[in-house]
Amino acid sequence: MNLLLFESKEIKNDNMACLQDRRSEHIIKVLGCRTGDIIRAGIINGPVGTAEILAIRGSGKKAEVTLCFSAHDILPKQPATDLVLGLVRPIMLKRLLAQVTSLGVSRIFLINANRVEKSFFDAGLIKDDNYRPYLVQGLEQAKDTRLPQVSIHRRFRPFVEDFIPAIKETYSRLLVAHPEVNKNLKQLKGLDQGGRTLLAVGPEGGWVDFEIDKFIEQSFIPVSLGKRILRTDTAVVALLAQLMILVRE
Amino acid sequence: MNLLLFESKEIKNDNMACLQDRRSEHIIKVLGCRTGDIIRAGIINGPVGTAEILAIRGSGKKAEVTLCFSAHDILPKQPATDLVLGLVRPIMLKRLLAQVTSLGVSRIFLINANRVEKSFFDAGLIKDDNYRPYLVQGLEQAKDTRLPQVSIHRRFRPFVEDFIPAIKETYSRLLVAHPEVNKNLKQLKGLDQGGRTLLAVGPEGGWVDFEIDKFIEQSFIPVSLGKRILRTDTAVVALLAQLMILVRE
Repeated sequence: MNLLLFESKEIKNDNMACLQDRRSEHIIKVLGCRTGDIIRAGIINGPVGTAEILAIRGSGKKAEVTLCFSAHDILPKQPATDLVLGLVRPIMLKRLLAQVTSLGVSRIFLINANRVEKSFFDAGLIKDDNYRPYLVQGLEQAKDTRLPQVSIHRRFRPFVEDFIPAIKETYSRLLVAHPEVNKNLKQLKGLDQGGRTLLAVGPEGGWVDFEIDKFIEQSFIPVSLGKRILRTDTAVVALLAQLMILVRE
Repeated sequence: MNLLLFESKEIKNDNMACLQDRRSEHIIKVLGCRTGDIIRAGIINGPVGTAEILAIRGSGKKAEVTLCFSAHDILPKQPATDLVLGLVRPIMLKRLLAQVTSLGVSRIFLINANRVEKSFFDAGLIKDDNYRPYLVQGLEQAKDTRLPQVSIHRRFRPFVEDFIPAIKETYSRLLVAHPEVNKNLKQLKGLDQGGRTLLAVGPEGGWVDFEIDKFIEQSFIPVSLGKRILRTDTAVVALLAQLMILVRE
């Protein structure tokens, strides 16, 4: 936890907040804080700043920490990349949501595809915002406060044929990961001109040809990571890392 | 499994091999192969080629598959990057070994550091080559046959002060990941000249200042991934992916 995150409703009118959960435990046990210490803190979807520890009552899991928050910076900038992801199995999705949030994405579209196991859509993880703690974990890691927006799309064609056309004008480039092409991100023109990117990465097993064709119909450019075929979780992190360095901010 | 891998001792003089393990199960259940089918195959630390399925006996976990291997290509090229990694907890290490192998590294030095929990060196995973299946997983994924060499270094100073000087001449650049510097890989000169890279990434919690100083004494250049602090597993994949695109092959 590189940044302590508050929910906005936790901050009272006098800028005070009282915590009694994994965060208070972390402040005492891992950070080893005492009354008077000041730590980096932020409000989810709000500003970054610091929090002064005013009081610690009790110990262990039941310890209660009272803090006073001061906002320093304005809201961090919105990441310039959005991610379309063929839904992966829950255990991989948990880790991936934290990782992509730490790398910085604004929207995450979890979609169906031919090689998505249908049971993944019944997973508790994608119901009722149950995935939210993993996004928060990613923010705490990266010292960001902007929670990515996650949406679930159970049908591939309506997503690509109806939803994509409605949003695609907001992007400077649309990319689809496809190991079978030779073009890598460095060979792509215009990345140094900045702008927003929509990146689509297939589920485990990849996109099928029909899906690649549908993305190309919508002006997505197929890009690969070279001859080595990577697993979805590795490919997502690798492509986001490459965009991070190639797209001008 | 994008490439079926044999141990060299499994291939008999007539190029035949007989499998009765997770690989035979995968060939039947996941690939749905039948007698006469030809699949991509390779020999660990040997050539890539194909294997023809000559016979399938039995079914389920006990199925036995007989194959005939034909070598096509010569040994794949050795990846140009080696990794020094502050030892992470076993569950993360398993995943990371498969991921870095799929991205392509030749040597992996698992080292001690101030923020490495000492108990990690007692983990069964790093004893008696128990980590080998995770490397093989990475090769199967990336269609490579070159198994990375893994070595364990229980003392930080002898590694950096004695071991590094003995190998450093073989590298065109030595890099150490350090979130507190502003320099990213794109700002580094000479990457387009190719050559080999040694990349050092800290354990969970990162390197301490003393360790960074020791690396710098050995001519390591500190590089970061930007303002966002990433977890070790994300940072390793991200930096390898960036090197992949920036260093001329």
